[in-house]
Amino acid sequence: MGTQTLRLPRSIALWVGTMFLFSLAAGTGSAEEQKKEHGGTPTAAYSPSLTTLGQIKVTIPGRKPDDPVISPEEFQKATQIYFQRCAGCHGVLRKGATGKPLTTDITRERGYKHLHTFITYGSPAGMPNWGTSGDLSKDDVDLMVRYLLIEPPQPPEFGMADIRKSWKVAVPVDKRPTKKMNTLDLDNLFSVTLRDAGQIALIDGESKKIVTVIDTGYAVHISRISASGRYLFVIGRDAKVNMIDLWMKTPATVAEVKIGAEARSVETSKMKGWEDKFAIAGAYWPPQYVIMDGATLEPQKVVSTRGMTYDTQEYHPEPRVAAIVASHYRPEFIVNVKETGKILLVDYSDIKNLKVTTIEAERFLHDGGFDSTKRYFLTAANARGKVVVVDTKKGTLTSILETGGETPHPGRGANLKHPVHGPVWATSHLGDETVALIGTDPKGHPDKAWKVVQTLEALGGGSLFVKSHPKSNNLYVDAVLNPEAEISASVAVFKVSELNKDEPEFVTLPIGEWAKISGGGQPRVVQGEYNTAGDEVWFSVWNAKDKESAIVIVDDKTLKLKHVIKDKRLITPTGKFNVFNTRADVY
Amino acid sequence: MGTQTLRLPRSIALWVGTMFLFSLAAGTGSAEEQKKEHGGTPTAAYSPSLTTLGQIKVTIPGRKPDDPVISPEEFQKATQIYFQRCAGCHGVLRKGATGKPLTTDITRERGYKHLHTFITYGSPAGMPNWGTSGDLSKDDVDLMVRYLLIEPPQPPEFGMADIRKSWKVAVPVDKRPTKKMNTLDLDNLFSVTLRDAGQIALIDGESKKIVTVIDTGYAVHISRISASGRYLFVIGRDAKVNMIDLWMKTPATVAEVKIGAEARSVETSKMKGWEDKFAIAGAYWPPQYVIMDGATLEPQKVVSTRGMTYDTQEYHPEPRVAAIVASHYRPEFIVNVKETGKILLVDYSDIKNLKVTTIEAERFLHDGGFDSTKRYFLTAANARGKVVVVDTKKGTLTSILETGGETPHPGRGANLKHPVHGPVWATSHLGDETVALIGTDPKGHPDKAWKVVQTLEALGGGSLFVKSHPKSNNLYVDAVLNPEAEISASVAVFKVSELNKDEPEFVTLPIGEWAKISGGGQPRVVQGEYNTAGDEVWFSVWNAKDKESAIVIVDDKTLKLKHVIKDKRLITPTGKFNVFNTRADVY
Repeated sequence: MGTQTLRLPRSIALWVGTMFLFSLAAGTGSAEEQKKEHGGTPTAAYSPSLTTLGQIKVTIPGRKPDDPVISPEEFQKATQIYFQRCAGCHGVLRKGATGKPLTTDITRERGYKHLHTFITYGSPAGMPNWGTSGDLSKDDVDLMVRYLLIEPPQPPEFGMADIRKSWKVAVPVDKRPTKKMNTLDLDNLFSVTLRDAGQIALIDGESKKIVTVIDTGYAVHISRISASGRYLFVIGRDAKVNMIDLWMKTPATVAEVKIGAEARSVETSKMKGWEDKFAIAGAYWPPQYVIMDGATLEPQKVVSTRGMTYDTQEYHPEPRVAAIVASHYRPEFIVNVKETGKILLVDYSDIKNLKVTTIEAERFLHDGGFDSTKRYFLTAANARGKVVVVDTKKGTLTSILETGGETPHPGRGANLKHPVHGPVWATSHLGDETVALIGTDPKGHPDKAWKVVQTLEALGGGSLFVKSHPKSNNLYVDAVLNPEAEISASVAVFKVSELNKDEPEFVTLPIGEWAKISGGGQPRVVQGEYNTAGDEVWFSVWNAKDKESAIVIVDDKTLKLKHVIKDKRLITPTGKFNVFNTRADVY
Repeated sequence: MGTQTLRLPRSIALWVGTMFLFSLAAGTGSAEEQKKEHGGTPTAAYSPSLTTLGQIKVTIPGRKPDDPVISPEEFQKATQIYFQRCAGCHGVLRKGATGKPLTTDITRERGYKHLHTFITYGSPAGMPNWGTSGDLSKDDVDLMVRYLLIEPPQPPEFGMADIRKSWKVAVPVDKRPTKKMNTLDLDNLFSVTLRDAGQIALIDGESKKIVTVIDTGYAVHISRISASGRYLFVIGRDAKVNMIDLWMKTPATVAEVKIGAEARSVETSKMKGWEDKFAIAGAYWPPQYVIMDGATLEPQKVVSTRGMTYDTQEYHPEPRVAAIVASHYRPEFIVNVKETGKILLVDYSDIKNLKVTTIEAERFLHDGGFDSTKRYFLTAANARGKVVVVDTKKGTLTSILETGGETPHPGRGANLKHPVHGPVWATSHLGDETVALIGTDPKGHPDKAWKVVQTLEALGGGSLFVKSHPKSNNLYVDAVLNPEAEISASVAVFKVSELNKDEPEFVTLPIGEWAKISGGGQPRVVQGEYNTAGDEVWFSVWNAKDKESAIVIVDDKTLKLKHVIKDKRLITPTGKFNVFNTRADVY
């Protein structure tokens, strides 16, 4: 019992930590550089044992004690940047997920120069070019490298007291309209994330005009619609949930709440008899999900996801909540717990006596969606290159399969009627050009079910989203992560009816070019979204915050440009969510 | 984000912790004494802020740096003693439960002298007199006081890899007998904890002879019997589970496993169709339960209990697993999670897709047992003075009621047929002389159900266990915690048929006196246990490790001494578990 880490009082630990920053962090070079520069053993310098530390008294050979290489103010700033820009992929505790782990054993091994280059220029595998994109200044990059070479801070908990403190009902239920007070076609409204503005835009699907812009959390990750179609829920990466009443003359936030420090997912109850009754949001930090009242966002239940990895059954301190979907067959939310690889079926029919079924799935669960019948939930275990299938009617694991590609990233995926293989569900990959088509019809095509029946090759360099629609013959595949500007601003389109060919060809749509962006920048084209009729597809042309962005609308039949939405308020548009398609899980 | 505690690398933290021990821990006096002695502000000395530490450079005014007031070796020894003697009540992280919290804000406020007195002499409320009992030497007491004035170490995790490493199958299933190879009446066998010897004794109920003594974990907390009656499971406070095959010529351990660092509970599956299929054990540290194969103890599933308190919904890092019982109505284990106040219904019918219902109950859940129908589980939320009732047939919370006494401690409780109130379940209290009788017959006596229908006054000073039997007219109440030697060695007996009186009287049995212990000591009399026929009751006369102990057997009809078991091997006997009564939940 005497060899484990000792708990220090908060103030001591902070102080020691700061000392440590001032002294040890002074060595910002790689292990090799350290060795050269100081002649000492870098391992001993960075991870001093009792003995070596007893000798060197918390200073690095060749460095003055208390050399302020990273000041408390810089540390504060770097933590802020890390939580906003990096934690989403690399984890609050830097243990990695979509992005690589950045624990100090690894960062110190890589060294200052390597990290600096990586942060500045990014990588084809998905790391953004923070430096050359202008998102981070040269000083910021330098700061972040130094920050990554020291131990991460432990972020605070965010329990019910904090959540309740953040909870605001702007318009109580009895002050809300009793019928729709506007003339909007709500089903064909689009909720568009204005990423770096901390807002969403509601855009009318018919007129293509912005109806209103609403302040939200930072970098809204998704929009979800209540089963009735009345309420829109959005969640920012800062874990702020906004609930927007679409019946108001001008739709606006009626309630908001912050459910943690960092989050990605929100959903509402969809089972018959439970429409609009509950909302749920999942946090990256603290690792927890929160069940809220569906009319007010009043937080009702906070459930921690800390626990054992599904396979080695070791304790994981930060199993983040990724995608959440609502079952159409049972009063359940389906909650992906990323690092431990567990899929939770959270029964909301009695939240005082909460029943949760924990399905052993696969690590690094991320996003996913339903098959065309909405019975099966297909979700990526992205860093494991797998897709996990859950039968939401039975509440059991159906299958785990390899996609054959690198890091599947389906979003909600795309459902197609394949000319040979019947109903399939598609996912593209972050790490390569492939699109995997997976059979989803165990009754009609039992030999194809839960197998990759075909692999398409699209533009390459890494895609974020695929998109199709039950009424469409097209499959769209973006190429956001491609290092070439032209390709990352284009979209590949496959004809579904021609997928019987050996090597199906695709048409490339130069969406970015069509947008005719003025004022420069390097906009990326991301996330196709259909209108309600299924006859047009909207793409975000996502430029830097201070540059012009646009939404380009493609005629789905002709694949010609139909319309370009430009508006000064359209700052960094990314995700778009058509109200009907989102509500009814049509994709 | 910049003000929270920083994570240090293990080695740094250890080193800093040790520095901290050497210097800060030097002040072993109370806050007031500190002030007097050094003239400084004791708060600053103990919890130095960044600034003050910056000034004083990790030394206490008036103390030499590195003054080894607690050495690493002493720290190691104190940790060992703390984990063995104190953690069970005060918590691994010292946050308190049955015992008071011992975090440094409290211990430093109380000060050296107060703690020394408390540890030496104990308290009537339940703190043992470790000093005067001889369990701890004067030096040990001094060491423990100093230990409590510094921050506790964080004990390590104990996941599947550690658990599997500890797993041993001494006799594989195919090498075990296929029929009973001895002539023992297994149903009337008693498994007796030999607390400080780290053993159990199997004692034949008929001959009263020790059949065998088996090495186990330290201070076996309970024994449980598989549904078939063949296998005996015991768990030590050190979280070691032994599985003993009662069919062997001489019953012996056939498998063992360690499921954590500290534990209290073990149980086996009892639902029809699942007999002998699974075992489960619950740990105090790490906070987790482990489901094992019922034939080999092979660990199958580790589940963390870390999570939110049921009421304030704040994260708790150490929600310990207290009592576990096996439902007779559903394939479920019922798991008490102490600090968060949650009762888990763990469905073992599909442990790959584990279904757990979490009932919001009350904090500090401890021990409990079934009503006479075995449908309702009654369990104490001890520090809250309450009993929680769960309907194990429906899987829902039935009631939460106050017992009216201080710190109910039912063990499994005692079921009586009350002459006025019908079926009741009894619990005594750690903190006073009362016994609460709670109505358990919602059909026959709906107005009495889940209410305290009568409160008896027994010997006083604090009781650990009550005991009765369906065939008996007696209710036995021990008084283990009474500070008077004579009373703590006696047992009160109420006649069930006379409970219709206003103030029912009891007979006092001088069990300790009957044992005629030679060689001194101050034995306590604890935990009555019936034989299978229900016509005799066994009590432990629990003396110090180096003193003579005994088991005294009372004739239940006459309340006269029937037999005294003495044996050199009978070292510190405490809990006794009759095979049939334990297996069939008869109490």
